[in-house]
Amino acid sequence: MAIQRRELVYDGPGGPFEGVLAFDPDAGEARPGVLIVPNVLGQKEADNLVAERLAALGYVGLAADVFGQGKRTTRESPDPARYMNQLNADRPLLRDRLHASLAALKAQPEVDPARTAAIGYCFGGKCVLDLARSGADLRAVVSFHGIFDRPSYANVTPIAPRILVCHGWADPLAPPESAAALTAELTEGGARWQLHAYGHAGHGFTDRSMQGSTRPGFGYDADADASSWAAMQRLLAEALA
Amino acid sequence: MAIQRRELVYDGPGGPFEGVLAFDPDAGEARPGVLIVPNVLGQKEADNLVAERLAALGYVGLAADVFGQGKRTTRESPDPARYMNQLNADRPLLRDRLHASLAALKAQPEVDPARTAAIGYCFGGKCVLDLARSGADLRAVVSFHGIFDRPSYANVTPIAPRILVCHGWADPLAPPESAAALTAELTEGGARWQLHAYGHAGHGFTDRSMQGSTRPGFGYDADADASSWAAMQRLLAEALA
Repeated sequence: MAIQRRELVYDGPGGPFEGVLAFDPDAGEARPGVLIVPNVLGQKEADNLVAERLAALGYVGLAADVFGQGKRTTRESPDPARYMNQLNADRPLLRDRLHASLAALKAQPEVDPARTAAIGYCFGGKCVLDLARSGADLRAVVSFHGIFDRPSYANVTPIAPRILVCHGWADPLAPPESAAALTAELTEGGARWQLHAYGHAGHGFTDRSMQGSTRPGFGYDADADASSWAAMQRLLAEALA
Repeated sequence: MAIQRRELVYDGPGGPFEGVLAFDPDAGEARPGVLIVPNVLGQKEADNLVAERLAALGYVGLAADVFGQGKRTTRESPDPARYMNQLNADRPLLRDRLHASLAALKAQPEVDPARTAAIGYCFGGKCVLDLARSGADLRAVVSFHGIFDRPSYANVTPIAPRILVCHGWADPLAPPESAAALTAELTEGGARWQLHAYGHAGHGFTDRSMQGSTRPGFGYDADADASSWAAMQRLLAEALA
């Protein structure tokens, strides 16, 4: 049966927010849910396609929105990072919006609220780490080319969700030193974590819109994309069983 | 059909050497070969079992010997590291023995010599990195809780085999700084590499004989064991196709 989409408008601080749910309408019982947190540009079709890929794997995907309804940018926008930067400057607000997005996912009738995970890309990778850091009730999070700087608030420890960090080692936005700091933070926080580092891969390695990028340290990497997706599948299968 | 074993005595500097080949006798055509390089204790039944697991996946496995026929130790030996230490002090000799072991694998009629890989455990992890560093004709190497210090000779660059380093982040024999140095070395050498770091896992995380170890930083870790084996399978399937 074809995967279906449903637009989802939900509340939260600074909302309303608008995301897209993807699910298999014939699956019957409630299924594990996976939150997808977008990159700097906000909720967009690429995220909806990830939600559909997750739905095809037997999950319910929610391509979430943490900027607010209608607040999106493109690479061509005068300031593509404007909404992201507002949230980077107020990590407690970002946290609360993330928790609101997770609550919206859990509230859907197709979703088993006891079995959820979150994945995120770039800024969204930071977001899913913040979900884990802030005590969200999740079984696993996966960061793809995420950013690792810690939030202003203290971690809720032990950090409960399993954590997979898929990282391009040539990423100038998160250099090896910041990856090392993250491993120390997660170890100290008692998290069950893995870091998969991809040599020569840069920021945005899953992002096909960056194919042919000539900006050093940025671009699509087919190997890292496929490896990280496979590792994510393996973790979700274990954690959401 | 049941996997078969064949004892293999082969030549090389300081030899003869004695390994065990494992293969499916009904597979017909020549198959990709995988060299297995043992840990500090040398060639033993645990390595033969790995060779059999690889044979069940469609490869020909050779549990190799780099110490020399009859030269093995156990954890209870007065000096379990005696043969390993001799080779650590003479990396060119180790290299030549590794190349001799690879040549022995390639010479077997069951093996397609154009499609080979090498995996290794602990000291054997260092060995497979040395194979890659020294220009061995291999498609991929996988190090499990290996040691990362560079050999005395210069690397043959670009480093051709794909490299997967599966590493316990709490391993005191290869601390994070040495992993970082390895990533820099491999990047500089042009290798196509991945490093999978497992939080809280220590040295020997694949070694069931270390279950219940109370030595900090050493021991079996079921998650890291299963994750690393899955990642290895994925790489071998790609590189040896």
